[in-house]
Amino acid sequence: MLIDSMYPKSFASDNHAGVHPTILEAMAAANHGDAPAYGDDSWTSTFEDKAKEVFGPGAQGFAVLNGAGANMVGLALMLGRYDAVICADSAHIATHEAGAAERLLGVKLMTVPTRDGKLRPEDVTSRLGGLGNPHETQPTVVSISQVTELGTCYSPAEIAALADVAHEAGLRLHVDGARLANAAAYLDCELKAITTAAGVDVFSFGGTKNGALAAEAVVVLDGSLAHAVPFLRRQSLQLASKMRFISAQLSALLTDDLWRRNAAHANLMANRLADGLADLPGVSLAHPVQSNAVFATLPPTVAEALRQRYLFHFWDEAAGTVRWMTAFDTTPENVDDFLDDIRKAATA
Amino acid sequence: MLIDSMYPKSFASDNHAGVHPTILEAMAAANHGDAPAYGDDSWTSTFEDKAKEVFGPGAQGFAVLNGAGANMVGLALMLGRYDAVICADSAHIATHEAGAAERLLGVKLMTVPTRDGKLRPEDVTSRLGGLGNPHETQPTVVSISQVTELGTCYSPAEIAALADVAHEAGLRLHVDGARLANAAAYLDCELKAITTAAGVDVFSFGGTKNGALAAEAVVVLDGSLAHAVPFLRRQSLQLASKMRFISAQLSALLTDDLWRRNAAHANLMANRLADGLADLPGVSLAHPVQSNAVFATLPPTVAEALRQRYLFHFWDEAAGTVRWMTAFDTTPENVDDFLDDIRKAATA
Amino acid sequence: MLIDSMYPKSFASDNHAGVHPTILEAMAAANHGDAPAYGDDSWTSTFEDKAKEVFGPGAQGFAVLNGAGANMVGLALMLGRYDAVICADSAHIATHEAGAAERLLGVKLMTVPTRDGKLRPEDVTSRLGGLGNPHETQPTVVSISQVTELGTCYSPAEIAALADVAHEAGLRLHVDGARLANAAAYLDCELKAITTAAGVDVFSFGGTKNGALAAEAVVVLDGSLAHAVPFLRRQSLQLASKMRFISAQLSALLTDDLWRRNAAHANLMANRLADGLADLPGVSLAHPVQSNAVFATLPPTVAEALRQRYLFHFWDEAAGTVRWMTAFDTTPENVDDFLDDIRKAATA
Amino acid sequence: MLIDSMYPKSFASDNHAGVHPTILEAMAAANHGDAPAYGDDSWTSTFEDKAKEVFGPGAQGFAVLNGAGANMVGLALMLGRYDAVICADSAHIATHEAGAAERLLGVKLMTVPTRDGKLRPEDVTSRLGGLGNPHETQPTVVSISQVTELGTCYSPAEIAALADVAHEAGLRLHVDGARLANAAAYLDCELKAITTAAGVDVFSFGGTKNGALAAEAVVVLDGSLAHAVPFLRRQSLQLASKMRFISAQLSALLTDDLWRRNAAHANLMANRLADGLADLPGVSLAHPVQSNAVFATLPPTVAEALRQRYLFHFWDEAAGTVRWMTAFDTTPENVDDFLDDIRKAATA
Repeated sequence: MLIDSMYPKSFASDNHAGVHPTILEAMAAANHGDAPAYGDDSWTSTFEDKAKEVFGPGAQGFAVLNGAGANMVGLALMLGRYDAVICADSAHIATHEAGAAERLLGVKLMTVPTRDGKLRPEDVTSRLGGLGNPHETQPTVVSISQVTELGTCYSPAEIAALADVAHEAGLRLHVDGARLANAAAYLDCELKAITTAAGVDVFSFGGTKNGALAAEAVVVLDGSLAHAVPFLRRQSLQLASKMRFISAQLSALLTDDLWRRNAAHANLMANRLADGLADLPGVSLAHPVQSNAVFATLPPTVAEALRQRYLFHFWDEAAGTVRWMTAFDTTPENVDDFLDDIRKAATA
Repeated sequence: MLIDSMYPKSFASDNHAGVHPTILEAMAAANHGDAPAYGDDSWTSTFEDKAKEVFGPGAQGFAVLNGAGANMVGLALMLGRYDAVICADSAHIATHEAGAAERLLGVKLMTVPTRDGKLRPEDVTSRLGGLGNPHETQPTVVSISQVTELGTCYSPAEIAALADVAHEAGLRLHVDGARLANAAAYLDCELKAITTAAGVDVFSFGGTKNGALAAEAVVVLDGSLAHAVPFLRRQSLQLASKMRFISAQLSALLTDDLWRRNAAHANLMANRLADGLADLPGVSLAHPVQSNAVFATLPPTVAEALRQRYLFHFWDEAAGTVRWMTAFDTTPENVDDFLDDIRKAATA
Repeated sequence: MLIDSMYPKSFASDNHAGVHPTILEAMAAANHGDAPAYGDDSWTSTFEDKAKEVFGPGAQGFAVLNGAGANMVGLALMLGRYDAVICADSAHIATHEAGAAERLLGVKLMTVPTRDGKLRPEDVTSRLGGLGNPHETQPTVVSISQVTELGTCYSPAEIAALADVAHEAGLRLHVDGARLANAAAYLDCELKAITTAAGVDVFSFGGTKNGALAAEAVVVLDGSLAHAVPFLRRQSLQLASKMRFISAQLSALLTDDLWRRNAAHANLMANRLADGLADLPGVSLAHPVQSNAVFATLPPTVAEALRQRYLFHFWDEAAGTVRWMTAFDTTPENVDDFLDDIRKAATA
Repeated sequence: MLIDSMYPKSFASDNHAGVHPTILEAMAAANHGDAPAYGDDSWTSTFEDKAKEVFGPGAQGFAVLNGAGANMVGLALMLGRYDAVICADSAHIATHEAGAAERLLGVKLMTVPTRDGKLRPEDVTSRLGGLGNPHETQPTVVSISQVTELGTCYSPAEIAALADVAHEAGLRLHVDGARLANAAAYLDCELKAITTAAGVDVFSFGGTKNGALAAEAVVVLDGSLAHAVPFLRRQSLQLASKMRFISAQLSALLTDDLWRRNAAHANLMANRLADGLADLPGVSLAHPVQSNAVFATLPPTVAEALRQRYLFHFWDEAAGTVRWMTAFDTTPENVDDFLDDIRKAATA
């Protein structure tokens, strides 16, 4: 059991951060009188409108409670009884959702090894050999993570290429966008550019890692699918009764580009951290820094020394790779203090 | 789509109320610095301690996101692959959770018709005829709702009798306690008296309907089951990453008996409402008022007239029964205004 | 553990009978050289053609291994993720398939109490109140048993009325036809009259209880559904590798009306048995005899005395009802001997 | 649609063969009078006794309908709700059972790439890193195929080593023994030596590929698990009503070592085929021949030419690998004729 106060700023996860003040204020402001439950309220209506503004008039946004929930509801929309999802073997749905995909969806995940967490069109086509064979599960969805679990981003063109190859084969494209904001901030583009305009069918838009308390959205771009969301959201245990407080969080993020400001800041802090590692002996980047994650390889003794003071994850112990995450509230001083300690440990 | 502001106080659901100020303050107070995600934080530790205080030293509390989630996680702990749950046919798990029990748990619900929402020991024994028969699902859990969906309460002795008959047959007893606080307030007893002391194995303790924003607990009294909760909670999409904000709500409810104050007030308002109906022509109570729900039978024209101004549910249109719920924030004036309007409609 | 040889002819189940010689010969005849596995063989092709002959050119027949399998594959074709099946509470899928519907399909069975095992159109319409409500499972299939579990039959008009009400509400009609042959024999009609012509969408055609070794068919009349059968049959563990031996059984039944001869004989024997009960003191029929099942109510002492010598099921111990089944190979002598023993017991 | 008669002996699958005459005779002999359904008959009792003889007094055998069914029932015995199975990525359960493991069991398959279809102890230990982490599925079963999908066999010592590493970590060992007989014949050992004596917990024993019509067994060696089989077998659609005809097949195989004679003959024919390939230009073995499968790599033109006349599978088109299977009824002449044609094609 960790004791919260004995540590300086955490670099373990953007989930260790609290709630952005603007979002908490929006929640408090929503605590006014009665409101119909389950989404028949004006805060939810506002969120739905904002989703259309940001993602396009055909986009239908549905608020849910967490990232795994957003993935399961989104995927369930597109999956029949003998279907498979093609995804990277590092995909969150494949590694860190406790088997929800298999248990709740009954789906096979056709995992593809990748160098950098990113699927390529040829990864998709190489998994289509069993189409039509009743002994094999039938891939019907390609699911990618944007940002990937390795902190890398797909360009709009890369996503469009995946959408093309998927659609040509009759599959749909899903994006796990738990850190979609960080990707758009890195790519310096609109959220629409890496979703609606790139041919995505269904995606999640993560709020929690970007300053919300607990709020994610399932966004449906293929209009033929949206009617099923209310049923699947309810059944998947992702429907909040006092929905206005979830919707208010999402609306706050989508107002005045708070999502971008939070994400861009977190990304900047990750870059500051990565830059500071440049000259340290034995320390190198394991992946390019394209979001708020820094994957670094460092000597075990250095990592161990840092773990005495800081919370972070060993990503690959055999390779000596650690993951350091920044958040909307990470300060330059937090990074510099951390770098000081890294430097001390690395040169000790 | 309902517009929130055009209505007076809602009598549709305790979910229409907002968040109790003390709980919102507790959430804001938790927004301080970093905290480990997923429950390794001091707020969660505090909640776990409070759960032991309230429910007994053997009780293990686990925070989840909503009531259906609490039910699914709690039941999953006790169910194998060919099991059935004996419950009232009005049970929330059977009627209003969108088939989550069947889909997520794969379980058959052996529903029993009841007069008042309450199972009796003989209802349990009458469903055990198929035990050992491989063609039939095997009942392994009895699940009751406290408060029931009809607003009635089980006495401690009634629960104990169900626990006895269940345990003798090798079944476990589960309580859907979405309104457990209202029951304890009505029965004027400790929460422990209708759970731990009555032989319950696993139950949920609802916060949301009692003034929380979104917070429920799965409480495990049979210690042999608790190890599975973290896995099932994660897989069932009920694990909050920024857990401290969920735990803080539950701790606030369990501090200084806020749970009881909120529930007792709501119950009192329901009684005030029921009392005010006493002399109205054509209006009668469909069930005894033992919580914050008033089930009334009234002429269709009266009901329809009230629906023009108030939000509430028609429970049984054929029988002319409506359900009116009060909440922690329902005021005597709200009730009296409503009664005025009921009186006008009933005597029009 | 029962010892087979100590009993006279069983009246417990048509499953206690062996295999009709013509069917066993057809299987032996299929044991000639190699044949492609999984249905790409000429015996299967023959069965598929015969299914079209018997059920109409739009009918697509798929051989499976047992009755529960036929039901699960057939229903799976028509069910999404949050769907419900309306059926009688005596339906085999609800009572005797070990929860396969809930576990394998994840579906809620909306069971309706019936007097005689038969659903009426108003039973269907009365269960449609939750359509569109995301808190409730959505009924999308009506499933009936023909013959019902109580030995009664639907007339073609009764089935057509159910199909109409189902289709008007957007639901499909499924028939569990484990004893479809017995129904057609009783009704003195073609199999087509109670399936294709009556508006059924998907049904099973049972072979095993009618003289086969192990062979049932899923027959799909709604052409839009058939493409999914090979996948669902494989996944549902219902695909025989040496398929020719299953197909050969079904073809034998569909040749020269063997299905009707077997069923009509069994029905005749049930009538002989029922007729013989007419004057026995304390013995009465619990349901009209419309197939190869006789449901009789008799004094407990009589039933118990008979159980010393005969295998049969107590259907409802409280009501003193037993079920006696006849089979394709039950002889008049078997019936008369049994009647003698019943008479002795009843008049003892 | 293939037409059966235009081809010579098939080398596509041991499923293309018919039924061994002794087995068909045993089935015909069982067609005598009535027998209780679902396994309460003397033929089944005989099979259960024979299973104890062959696999040891603690072995409990349960007859099922096909190989995928045997795997699903056997695995279901050992799997909870958030469990994973460690298996080779070529495992039949992972590749050719249409997603039954994910859909019916809700389980994640942790697939391990292998050179030869065989798991090693280090493959198991390398997948245990997530034990105890609630974000990850928990491996609780190691499943191997004996014979593997690549035609190779585990020695008794190799299985024991896997059992040891599994048991030490609290996992159980499952064997998909669809071709267990071929393995024992190749290893020249008793069936017990590669199951009971090697520490296996649950395995399947395949009859169908070894001359049966449709008969497999789930054999449970861990006695604590056996009570659940009847329920899971029923629910998994694997219970034959006229069970005697399935049991009779298995008993026939286990009598006078018919299983070994059939398997040894098939293996011998595979060896004859492999030997005949030795000098052919451009033709080589892709895997050692340790059963009734020959994996050969040959020029595409040669493979294509052979496909004009023979049924067989391309295993890996990119690598030019084909799979040729022999069966209990493959004759030396069949092999020699095939070799003649291969030779002609290879030297054309």
